Amino acid sequence: MKNPLSFDGFIQIAIVVQDIQKAAETWARFFNIPVPEIRYRPPAPNPDLTYRGKPAEYGLKLANIEAGPFVIELHEPDERDSTFREFLDKHGNGVHHLGFQVGKKRDAIVGELEEMGYAMRTIGYYPGSSWTIVDSEDDLGVNLNIKPRA
Amino acid sequence: MKNPLSFDGFIQIAIVVQDIQKAAETWARFFNIPVPEIRYRPPAPNPDLTYRGKPAEYGLKLANIEAGPFVIELHEPDERDSTFREFLDKHGNGVHHLGFQVGKKRDAIVGELEEMGYAMRTIGYYPGSSWTIVDSEDDLGVNLNIKPRA
Repeated sequence: MKNPLSFDGFIQIAIVVQDIQKAAETWARFFNIPVPEIRYRPPAPNPDLTYRGKPAEYGLKLANIEAGPFVIELHEPDERDSTFREFLDKHGNGVHHLGFQVGKKRDAIVGELEEMGYAMRTIGYYPGSSWTIVDSEDDLGVNLNIKPRA
Repeated sequence: MKNPLSFDGFIQIAIVVQDIQKAAETWARFFNIPVPEIRYRPPAPNPDLTYRGKPAEYGLKLANIEAGPFVIELHEPDERDSTFREFLDKHGNGVHHLGFQVGKKRDAIVGELEEMGYAMRTIGYYPGSSWTIVDSEDDLGVNLNIKPRA
């Protein structure tokens, strides 16, 4: 790629689970840390969020675990269509994506990946940054999240 | 836990794939790095390797990608019984485990996890270190590898 990814940009391990309460408590127990707060984002219309090219509207429970230079993000999706629900139905619990911060190269990288034939499973814009899930699990063994900023 | 894990010990993301050649080439392409060498370890009797408590004898293709402070390990198992074959049959391609270096606390940590009811899917000893795969995917969303030394 003309605009390759860099391991220096590694920021995130995102995990999908069927039971986020149990996962949060078990991570806390294993690492002797406080049980991370579980937030709930109810489904809501969002013009800045797509799943496989269509508007996405799904509920999600989330918890973040600060792990030094990176973050472990736990996700428990509801039954509505989302990249997380797709993963859980196909694979069960597991690592949904590895996240990389790429700065201003985000558009160039996503463009190159699309030219190579990779689908963007989810694109979400929010104030200050965005997230883009590259459907790379068949080739890399894991999906990627391309972010301009953490 | 009395002997908790630490994120400071994070050293490894281990991925299982059906096609390690394709995975190695795709990682290299995305990150603009040389295609990592693929090694093949043929099945051989090994008294220092167990899978779910029984002697393990399986073939494995392996490739390591140096990713700064950690290593991405690609694994393509053969059809014989192994923790990697089990994962591939159950989940398809995916992150099999996250590896942590724990120093001299290895035995205490493994003992505590066994007391909590977690099974050790694989234990392997080799000169200078060992690896122990904790079957934690149902609770954490991913398995762990507990290593005294990287």
